[in-house]
Amino acid sequence: MSATQLPRQVKVIEVGPRDGLQNEKQLVPLATKIELVDRLSAAGFANVEAASFVSPKWVPQMADGAEVMAGIARRPGTIYSVLTPNMKGFEGALAARADEVVIFGAASEAFSQRNINCSIAESVARFAPVARAAKDAGLRLRGAISCCLGCPYQGEVPVAAVVDVVQRLQALGCDEIDIADTIGVGTAGQTRTVIEAAAKVFPIERLSGHFHDTYGQALANIYAALLSGITIFHSSVAGLGGCPYAKGATGNVATEDVLYLLQGLGIETGIDLEQVVETGDFISQAIGRANASRAGRALLTKMRDRAAAASA
Amino acid sequence: MSATQLPRQVKVIEVGPRDGLQNEKQLVPLATKIELVDRLSAAGFANVEAASFVSPKWVPQMADGAEVMAGIARRPGTIYSVLTPNMKGFEGALAARADEVVIFGAASEAFSQRNINCSIAESVARFAPVARAAKDAGLRLRGAISCCLGCPYQGEVPVAAVVDVVQRLQALGCDEIDIADTIGVGTAGQTRTVIEAAAKVFPIERLSGHFHDTYGQALANIYAALLSGITIFHSSVAGLGGCPYAKGATGNVATEDVLYLLQGLGIETGIDLEQVVETGDFISQAIGRANASRAGRALLTKMRDRAAAASA
Repeated sequence: MSATQLPRQVKVIEVGPRDGLQNEKQLVPLATKIELVDRLSAAGFANVEAASFVSPKWVPQMADGAEVMAGIARRPGTIYSVLTPNMKGFEGALAARADEVVIFGAASEAFSQRNINCSIAESVARFAPVARAAKDAGLRLRGAISCCLGCPYQGEVPVAAVVDVVQRLQALGCDEIDIADTIGVGTAGQTRTVIEAAAKVFPIERLSGHFHDTYGQALANIYAALLSGITIFHSSVAGLGGCPYAKGATGNVATEDVLYLLQGLGIETGIDLEQVVETGDFISQAIGRANASRAGRALLTKMRDRAAAASA
Repeated sequence: MSATQLPRQVKVIEVGPRDGLQNEKQLVPLATKIELVDRLSAAGFANVEAASFVSPKWVPQMADGAEVMAGIARRPGTIYSVLTPNMKGFEGALAARADEVVIFGAASEAFSQRNINCSIAESVARFAPVARAAKDAGLRLRGAISCCLGCPYQGEVPVAAVVDVVQRLQALGCDEIDIADTIGVGTAGQTRTVIEAAAKVFPIERLSGHFHDTYGQALANIYAALLSGITIFHSSVAGLGGCPYAKGATGNVATEDVLYLLQGLGIETGIDLEQVVETGDFISQAIGRANASRAGRALLTKMRDRAAAASA
């Protein structure tokens, strides 16, 4: 596929409220979380990852998922996704009227063993009851695959391992599957190789790209993925999801940077970039964190200069 | 050109000592500048932009260009470039035994008028004596074109304006011509359009891409430029060249991020990435500035962990 065959439309899934905030040490007030989700849906996101129904012992920051879901203003047309690690989580998600539940697995055997003490195959199989229940309840089911471009423990991850997990998640009935570069080590050529292999076993229009900017590669990887035909991307407003200066930083790609790229390429998203920039400023200030979006910072300066000129 | 036709080799021109340092308010000690250039040439760069022979009244930081050139250890095979705005600068460059002199023009009429109070055509024509003298002295001649993807004053820059300046610089005998996105506003598709237009009038193997990361787009633009056939890129170690948090930040793309991308794509540069990472740490500490390279910060953490494990 050449650059002239870029998609006309792309779906950007905003993951800041969940994947972004979950690593914040300081508990974020419920009202702030609700305002964040509401600002994002108002900006036009068709899909917001809003909460995680995980044990509060594991992730205290996500303990108020039910309250977040109860407090937000549901925007018609927006899909609110929640992470559901088990049946208990699923029951919570169902009660909270989530539109989509997210299950997950790693493409790295070492990562799976280290983090959940079982093989990839076992970890995915354990989601079968959640997947069945989601289907029975008429919810969308999304499957996230971590470490698709590299693993902090084993280093390289074979392409075949990614394809294998895609097939396992497909067998569980996933409507959408995420190819995630959890530690941000992948580069553009590798991105294309992995995506094109995954697309041989699962429809590319339901595959998504989830990139981290730890090595500064996320935007190049997104451009590469677009060239391979991907039309769904994950991003996090203000780059929420790990301080880029800290060891073990996760560094989700910033939504503003992604939207700026897509806008420049003439690709429609239905999202108001300036509203997202304001939202990035809001949440960065609310949690006392530097805004990690380069486009966000540059556009905020421009917007303020314009406002100052208009009021002068 | 498809992704499978990426070049096998790329020349990375390190511009940190000149384009990077010139905007630092605090004067950088001569010894630090010399050590920076020497570390970079030792890391394997075939081309280092080492100094500017501009009036010290305009750019006080660059006042010691002759001393930098006299103090460095010349690595055989490395081209040391210097900026020469006029004949006086050229005489200085010649005396300093520069290998390449750099002349420049903007692709934006508004930028040219605002910054040097004359038209683009006039500004390039004024370089004719420098260009002739460089050729007579057997020096390489490089021409840099600023604002190729956008201008802070006029906004959009027509592709035809870029092509026109390429032709003017070619007429002066430039061996290499730089397509620069001075304010970092360009995106990948636009990058390809401008480069492919410039390549119709000047050999693409002597065109270079100079990108800034102000909007986070530099790596995506470099990947796009590679796909269009560009094999020369400029970058700045540790992202020297403007604080990403400051208004009017220049934000040169970080060399470490570029080398990480090229390494991932299997493209040879002849440069030792780990030495560059160490150099980025050295200069960031020396001038008391946060390291703006994401790959640099991530790799430094890894390298230190490895060193700690080895000595434990």
